[in-house]
Amino acid sequence: MTLQVSFKYDSTNERFVTDTQGREPMSIRDPFTSKEIYHTPTELLLLGMGGCSSDDILLILKKRKNEVSDFRCEVTGTRAETDPKTLTYANIHYIINGKVDEDSARKAIDLSLSKYCSVSILAKRGGTDLRYSLTLNGKKIAESEKA
Amino acid sequence: MTLQVSFKYDSTNERFVTDTQGREPMSIRDPFTSKEIYHTPTELLLLGMGGCSSDDILLILKKRKNEVSDFRCEVTGTRAETDPKTLTYANIHYIINGKVDEDSARKAIDLSLSKYCSVSILAKRGGTDLRYSLTLNGKKIAESEKA
Repeated sequence: MTLQVSFKYDSTNERFVTDTQGREPMSIRDPFTSKEIYHTPTELLLLGMGGCSSDDILLILKKRKNEVSDFRCEVTGTRAETDPKTLTYANIHYIINGKVDEDSARKAIDLSLSKYCSVSILAKRGGTDLRYSLTLNGKKIAESEKA
Repeated sequence: MTLQVSFKYDSTNERFVTDTQGREPMSIRDPFTSKEIYHTPTELLLLGMGGCSSDDILLILKKRKNEVSDFRCEVTGTRAETDPKTLTYANIHYIINGKVDEDSARKAIDLSLSKYCSVSILAKRGGTDLRYSLTLNGKKIAESEKA
């Protein structure tokens, strides 16, 4: 499975702008110069981790006949103090509402973070201490559990 | 250094939309359902790798009094055939034009990919075979070199 993305430097706005074939353009912040309104490269990594895992979870819950009415995800990360300042810790917090049982939600998260979510599992292999939290229908079910 | 990003599922368009505080919203493709115009989670990882390294390179070249007139980056990746289908190979191709000498460009790339670029170095530690290519003022200087 091969994929390609691309971007160029926009010197007027001091940011990178993607020109990936067939994809909507998006901006990437140059942390040294750009305005703060664009996501930084490390933030894109966190979005990739949360995004691929959320994909899995929604799919697994659907297959198990759960009905998600509302889904939100917050990913928190900590970088090392010294170069290369890699991601040492990340917590993915899933906030789910709907006709979803606790057991299905936990199992979907566990399956994703241990077996399917390629971006999160790559980060784990690279040394990130990966955790997750779950809030289901307003109730905190799991808090910073080891993934 | 702590950071946080967030997104929600937009069921109308079957995509994720970021609502990270202070950042411009962007869309993430749900590979199982969304239209192809949004970047997927793995593509965001590739953009993060290329983006953080491009930041470093532009900064290093500037410090060394090189004048970059034009900068573009293409990142190619290959995922494993079996779950979790992590990124097994990536090549970052830097396409630079300007008053830049070969030696400075190579050194900037080497420094970034070995010492500074947190997203790429995390992927390397996680098992990605990371390579780079360099085209400088239309001339191919390096091709798929080990990073």
